[in-house]
Amino acid sequence: MGNPPKTMGPIALSIGDPAGVGPEIIALAWNVRKQAALAPFFAVGGASVLAAAAQQRGLDMPLRHVSSISEACEVFDECMPVFGAIDSHYSPGKPSEEGARLALASLRGATKLAVGEKVSAIATAPIAKSRLAEIGFTHPGQTEYLARACGLADEQAVMMLAGPQLKAIPLTVHCALSDVPGLITADLIIQRTRIAVAALRRDFGLEQPRIAIAGLNPHAGEGGKFGSEELEIIVPAIAALRSQGIDATGPHPADAMFAPHARGNYDVALCMYHDQALIPVKALDFDQGVNVTLGLPIIRTSPDHGTAFDIAGKNIANAGAMIAAIKMAGDCATRRARQN
Amino acid sequence: MGNPPKTMGPIALSIGDPAGVGPEIIALAWNVRKQAALAPFFAVGGASVLAAAAQQRGLDMPLRHVSSISEACEVFDECMPVFGAIDSHYSPGKPSEEGARLALASLRGATKLAVGEKVSAIATAPIAKSRLAEIGFTHPGQTEYLARACGLADEQAVMMLAGPQLKAIPLTVHCALSDVPGLITADLIIQRTRIAVAALRRDFGLEQPRIAIAGLNPHAGEGGKFGSEELEIIVPAIAALRSQGIDATGPHPADAMFAPHARGNYDVALCMYHDQALIPVKALDFDQGVNVTLGLPIIRTSPDHGTAFDIAGKNIANAGAMIAAIKMAGDCATRRARQN
Repeated sequence: MGNPPKTMGPIALSIGDPAGVGPEIIALAWNVRKQAALAPFFAVGGASVLAAAAQQRGLDMPLRHVSSISEACEVFDECMPVFGAIDSHYSPGKPSEEGARLALASLRGATKLAVGEKVSAIATAPIAKSRLAEIGFTHPGQTEYLARACGLADEQAVMMLAGPQLKAIPLTVHCALSDVPGLITADLIIQRTRIAVAALRRDFGLEQPRIAIAGLNPHAGEGGKFGSEELEIIVPAIAALRSQGIDATGPHPADAMFAPHARGNYDVALCMYHDQALIPVKALDFDQGVNVTLGLPIIRTSPDHGTAFDIAGKNIANAGAMIAAIKMAGDCATRRARQN
Repeated sequence: MGNPPKTMGPIALSIGDPAGVGPEIIALAWNVRKQAALAPFFAVGGASVLAAAAQQRGLDMPLRHVSSISEACEVFDECMPVFGAIDSHYSPGKPSEEGARLALASLRGATKLAVGEKVSAIATAPIAKSRLAEIGFTHPGQTEYLARACGLADEQAVMMLAGPQLKAIPLTVHCALSDVPGLITADLIIQRTRIAVAALRRDFGLEQPRIAIAGLNPHAGEGGKFGSEELEIIVPAIAALRSQGIDATGPHPADAMFAPHARGNYDVALCMYHDQALIPVKALDFDQGVNVTLGLPIIRTSPDHGTAFDIAGKNIANAGAMIAAIKMAGDCATRRARQN
């Protein structure tokens, strides 16, 4: 069955904003590396921040500065490997410019390793976009930054939220709800679905992914009674996708499609706006939600939550989503390695 | 603690469209009346439809035509009581004008008994609005019909979706998503919340209900970055409610507020639009979701699903929501009786 996996590189972790929960959830993830069968990973920079966060959480996590990627793999079972000297101070809940600089340098370093094929995937801990903007980061988020770092346009990167019970892609993301109807076009639906389908085949082992496309309006418009976007835009887009051999269905009434019995009928939900996708993922899979970027030459995952400055350093942050992000990055990398 | 309950009337059930799942889920509910500790109920009309539906589901349900409400209570343990001679034929999956007339007559009969205080509550099985419209029913839905039957304006009736894990009220309901931003006003938020709070105190035993009010935009607008409705409308409405002694909080980012740990912080979510409320309720509580009408002098509940013509008569309809609706009607009636 398939090719044997070729030797796989480890996963590079960017440590996120050091004042957020990133450092402690990385330490927690390293702590369960065996039980969770995580592929080897290392942090890009932030050694003293990680050490302090581990100590705060009462975790026994010896750190090792490594000078090569292969060394990171060798020491991973016994030590948390850190690659690169960039560092800052651990001050949970107190974001600073110095911390933002570390977050950005760690993200850049991890990305560079992935683009250069030195690692098999990256998993990025949470950053604070507003903090990065203050030090000159001009991208709307990490997803768009990664697209550009891979030499692609922003719109080539497709955000998917994935939990054990639901995978969902928001067609539009950070915009006012009143702007959503004007942003939805058949071309956008078709382009995003095609990117998603290619990535689901390559990285998620879904030969013929079943894509359920949501309506925009209540009851998917009920035949045009509540809004015309379904009939004018979504129905034609689904027909075009189907004519291209893609298993797209819908438009589905959004309130019904996330019910337990309905979720079994598809692999991924394509949603029309941010909250239509994120409400059900977070309601169902909050502590295991992964944000994965589809459409890039590199594999990138992230926990589906923010820096949570308010709970950082208080020994209550849950590492479930970070662990799930590392696990998913490793699984995707394994599938790619088998294909090459 | 409180007054002893005064003698409570039974619950009147309207049988819904006889071609839908209504008759079979009523039969299933009667079948578990003891295990589920349901208050006595009876159907308004539809004897032959109920008998046929019970037989189709393989249920042993003797029917009894009763000529008074008190007789219904007396026979309930042994027989399914039916009050009124109105009837039709059982043809699951095949809606007809005759069936629609029975559905409407049953709804009218049950409502009349509740308005006349002959019963303590009504639980209404699903109707098909489009079918009722064809025979001259001019209301947008049962909720608005009930408001008028109680001598109130449509907007006095507030729809709440309630499951074991979440209660949510949609501020706007059946309209295009593009119309939602224009429909949201501070007055509407204040008026609906006040109606809801009074009903939650009276019928749900919540002395000081905690109302979490959702934002309209992603991340509740993130300080005005994605839409201004939060700052211009929702924040002032919450301030006004709080100044009136109501425990209202928000605006909360809609994707985060339905996560498991967040749901413990409030009793009811007030949502800005249909799917914002119904996506999480149906994702979390699909087979136990109850639609309850707040703000009326009568108690009315309904299963939170439609006629499901496609599965009617196929022995697969789940009666969980109907059972939950009858249970909730009985619980609300008990609380009211203790107050009187």
